[in-house]
Amino acid sequence: MPTIVVEVMPKPELLDPAGKATAGALTKQGSTAFSAVRIGKRFELTVDGEVTDAVLAEAQRLAEEFLSNQVIEDVVAVKVA
Amino acid sequence: MPTIVVEVMPKPELLDPAGKATAGALTKQGSTAFSAVRIGKRFELTVDGEVTDAVLAEAQRLAEEFLSNQVIEDVVAVKVA
Repeated sequence: MPTIVVEVMPKPELLDPAGKATAGALTKQGSTAFSAVRIGKRFELTVDGEVTDAVLAEAQRLAEEFLSNQVIEDVVAVKVA
Repeated sequence: MPTIVVEVMPKPELLDPAGKATAGALTKQGSTAFSAVRIGKRFELTVDGEVTDAVLAEAQRLAEEFLSNQVIEDVVAVKVA
């Protein structure tokens, strides 16, 4: 069955302590290629039937209303996997 | 600065209680388009400089060794944003 992927990230202006800690850990492991890490969520929604424009619009609505907290997060992608 | 996105999902054979609860909540909200939800993590690694093959290989290594628990998770994508 088709899958829609929803990606949610913390708003850029927001502090991301977990991301900061992860970046620090990567540096301690000797990795110098990356200057920052931000951590968000990735949802896979299994679609019951075909992916239509209406289903994609529904996924976008649910992403904004239920799968993210619009005060601190942005929905950065809603796409067919 | 360029960004590499790492996507990590629970292994398919693993129970995903949070995903199951989310799917149930979406159904309660009257949404019938989706039969299942799985929840994973999305990392954005800010690259210090150019994205080379070596940097991508480093991101893949770090994704497998630090950003995911290979017992219960799969790295499903490592790509330039």
